[in-house]
Amino acid sequence: MDTGSFNPSRRQLLKMIGQVAGAAAMYQAMTSLGFAQDSGYTGQVALQGPRQGRRVLILGAGVAGMAAAYEMRRAGYEVKILEYQNRHGGRCLTLRGGDRYTEMGGHEIACNFEGDGYFNPGPWRLPVHHRAVFDYCRRLGVPLHPFIMHNEKAYLHSSRAFGGQPQRVGQVATDVRGHVSELLAKSLDQGGLDETVSTEDREKLLEGLREWGVLDHNLRYGTNTDLGGVRGWEVPPGGGLMPDQKASNPLELSPLLQSGLWDQLFNFNGYSYSSPMFEPAGGMDAIADAFAREVSDTIQFNARVTRIAQGDTSVTVTYEDRDRDGMMREETADWCICTIPLSVLAQLDVDCSEPMRRAIAAVPYASAFKVALEFKRRFWEQDDWIMGGISYTDLPLVQIAYPNYGFMSDGPAVLQAAYDTSTAGKNFTYSWSTMTPKERVAAALALGRQIHPQYDAEFMNGTSWVWHRVDWSLGCYGQWTEQLRNVHYKTLCEIDNRLVLAGEHCSHLPAWLEGALLSALDAIRQLDQRENT
Amino acid sequence: MDTGSFNPSRRQLLKMIGQVAGAAAMYQAMTSLGFAQDSGYTGQVALQGPRQGRRVLILGAGVAGMAAAYEMRRAGYEVKILEYQNRHGGRCLTLRGGDRYTEMGGHEIACNFEGDGYFNPGPWRLPVHHRAVFDYCRRLGVPLHPFIMHNEKAYLHSSRAFGGQPQRVGQVATDVRGHVSELLAKSLDQGGLDETVSTEDREKLLEGLREWGVLDHNLRYGTNTDLGGVRGWEVPPGGGLMPDQKASNPLELSPLLQSGLWDQLFNFNGYSYSSPMFEPAGGMDAIADAFAREVSDTIQFNARVTRIAQGDTSVTVTYEDRDRDGMMREETADWCICTIPLSVLAQLDVDCSEPMRRAIAAVPYASAFKVALEFKRRFWEQDDWIMGGISYTDLPLVQIAYPNYGFMSDGPAVLQAAYDTSTAGKNFTYSWSTMTPKERVAAALALGRQIHPQYDAEFMNGTSWVWHRVDWSLGCYGQWTEQLRNVHYKTLCEIDNRLVLAGEHCSHLPAWLEGALLSALDAIRQLDQRENT
Repeated sequence: MDTGSFNPSRRQLLKMIGQVAGAAAMYQAMTSLGFAQDSGYTGQVALQGPRQGRRVLILGAGVAGMAAAYEMRRAGYEVKILEYQNRHGGRCLTLRGGDRYTEMGGHEIACNFEGDGYFNPGPWRLPVHHRAVFDYCRRLGVPLHPFIMHNEKAYLHSSRAFGGQPQRVGQVATDVRGHVSELLAKSLDQGGLDETVSTEDREKLLEGLREWGVLDHNLRYGTNTDLGGVRGWEVPPGGGLMPDQKASNPLELSPLLQSGLWDQLFNFNGYSYSSPMFEPAGGMDAIADAFAREVSDTIQFNARVTRIAQGDTSVTVTYEDRDRDGMMREETADWCICTIPLSVLAQLDVDCSEPMRRAIAAVPYASAFKVALEFKRRFWEQDDWIMGGISYTDLPLVQIAYPNYGFMSDGPAVLQAAYDTSTAGKNFTYSWSTMTPKERVAAALALGRQIHPQYDAEFMNGTSWVWHRVDWSLGCYGQWTEQLRNVHYKTLCEIDNRLVLAGEHCSHLPAWLEGALLSALDAIRQLDQRENT
Repeated sequence: MDTGSFNPSRRQLLKMIGQVAGAAAMYQAMTSLGFAQDSGYTGQVALQGPRQGRRVLILGAGVAGMAAAYEMRRAGYEVKILEYQNRHGGRCLTLRGGDRYTEMGGHEIACNFEGDGYFNPGPWRLPVHHRAVFDYCRRLGVPLHPFIMHNEKAYLHSSRAFGGQPQRVGQVATDVRGHVSELLAKSLDQGGLDETVSTEDREKLLEGLREWGVLDHNLRYGTNTDLGGVRGWEVPPGGGLMPDQKASNPLELSPLLQSGLWDQLFNFNGYSYSSPMFEPAGGMDAIADAFAREVSDTIQFNARVTRIAQGDTSVTVTYEDRDRDGMMREETADWCICTIPLSVLAQLDVDCSEPMRRAIAAVPYASAFKVALEFKRRFWEQDDWIMGGISYTDLPLVQIAYPNYGFMSDGPAVLQAAYDTSTAGKNFTYSWSTMTPKERVAAALALGRQIHPQYDAEFMNGTSWVWHRVDWSLGCYGQWTEQLRNVHYKTLCEIDNRLVLAGEHCSHLPAWLEGALLSALDAIRQLDQRENT
């Protein structure tokens, strides 16, 4: 470690403070307010409100629909929400012990958790730059706590490498940095990059690689006596007369490259997954519940929309009232905000322009599955020292996510024991979607015990969720391609006569709550603008 | 993204599950139980206990002393703790509004926080591999929550680079990975490493660098259209008709190398700082309080030890009883466990072997300072989207740590606004130690506003702590060197007749609570063994 040659005296320090204080005014212009905006959310939406009484019919009591209702009513519009299910929240839901759901195909999903663990089949983590979500949580009083996305103690696992033994995330990351640094340092040393890197930069680069990659004086990785302090220990530093510490041994370059574990590290690369992430305390549905506290009086449940008809100045929605023996009813309003997933909407009778009709039909829906398992104890914490976070594997369960609440508690706890979507990595979703609920739990158990052999002794029960078997969403989220966006996205998001769509499918953030919220905010901005021009 | 060609059918998946299930038994041997131990803590200590009534006198009611008392009494020893201060916990302390302390030199440290924020002058974060700390927290009921060490939204700041504008941790990290990857890929492309890297590894390496470093098809960094999804946005992806997204612009290699920001990234490299870290809810003294709940009846406060005398079968400690007008008193016991910091102990009259005396005198104590500032609102969250974590700077305040509790709440909150130790990085500790408490707060404010200009408008009040001005520790922790360890460490930790030392200075984990606990556990193991041989 550099112990530093710059050690200003008290007087020098006080003088330095005087100098920089003068610079503060100038700097003010470059402060946080000058940073790139980083979110489409620019603070609480300011609607002008209707110039006369206006009625807005909202289809779907998910987060987009409820946010639209909340803001439109605040601005003076009369709102009503029609919701197909007997619950609010849409895909923002949480399963707890006692919950039941019959999926398409007739199988019952039963959640029989005995402890206070829970399972979020849909959204489950919030990036801090999703400012709309955070601001609504603040305004509506939803407490958030850290969701540990990046746990260096969690595992990367390949069934075909290192004898199937899981490796710690942090150790693989250290080894990647080390080997890459050694190779680049060697190359610089050989003069291979003299035309690309100036002499001055070369010195800084070598200095940086040495520290970043924990290289020794000969710029080699794996032999530095400081390695334990970065990579961890085979024999840890102890107290008193405990045995002498000994650094852990790095994975060698070639087996590491061939193992595929580096690829698993890329799961932490995404900006959407950068640390820290957050989650609502007690389950993701806390966000849906918070909106429902504001707008539940505007929601009519068990209303299955069959037709959206438009006139020049109004919109009429026909729906089956399943609370009244399936009686067909109509609601008329000045505007309609429709948040029904495109996968469902494409099958309804909708009056709209031909380009809008094509846009609604164009977007396929991603598939996704999750399995959750309840265990008698937190063996991942007690035996493996994994406190929250996610392990990745090449097995078809793809990832195991550990709970970020109830740390160190006794008694049962729930793992998200398998999760994949059809747009990420290898696509195992169709195979899981065709299994029965029982088979899914059995599969997650049989596969997961390769990473956590404690599964067999500690298993209590499990549940699952397969988005393509959910009749009210018929898939997980809009699976846009660049090509589809070029042709259809603008049409889909523009007002079509008296109708405007909202939901994650009307955003550049598919699958994220932030996309649902921003789409709702843009839809109501458009409506309010139209009202006032 | 790789959408994957491997998509097993349901039948293939079920078959695969059958195969791997058979492998589980074999794998069992390689599970977590087979992992390197990674902590000197091997679970609850098992002492045999005394064969007859034995009295143990413990000096110091810090965490080491209280842990020793707790375990020794559980094993059947009679214990008594003499403590110099009128409080338990030693360096494991937390300041809250209303707290006062007069430091050496006569200045009063006042903590006038008006909100529920607090300040940990000593230990403040727990690595998960510090298993003794975690296990005692579990056993004694201390709730822990995540301490965000690595916040990619926090700042790296150089007053001499990028016009003094702070850069986001995650963006600097992405740029370092990107530039390093581009250079190494170029070198591989030019055949510069053909003798080092096999053709097969070379392919995997290029593939990995491309993804890890977000390189484009020509293996260049900064031009990949996916960069925004990793580095973040200048115009973020929005909802509805919000403006088109635009990736942020990378820092160029040369300015980045010359800025010194890469060096600041190394703060996240250390194994002791790997994610996730934890902290006790409500302040670090929750750990001390938990031990005190168990052993407070054994503590005599305000007892200033002046002499430790040893006979063949007993030890006698003389102390000034400051609760009784400074009356000098004596306590005799079979054994003495002394956790008094060496900086203080070296000045007392101690009967011990000559090597032990030299060892006690040999270890210098590191200096360290912290300043904490209370502000009217959480502008770092509201304006800068920094939720917890730490920003680093080349300014003499070294780092700003944001609270990891009370996220998104209104009202005042406390920053740890300056912190450095004499063993880490540039050493600013002596300058801060010689300032008055008022000057320290003024300095932290004047320097910190360069990073957070909101300081001026939002400041409420501040406090500080300078370990070299604390009469009961005379410094922060034992500043061992390898040379000192070779000569003195074993002597220091071995039983000297009826006396054994404990505390972080008797460990390979100086300054850490884990070191204090492991040293205590080893000391009592030695005593108990001596009793039973």
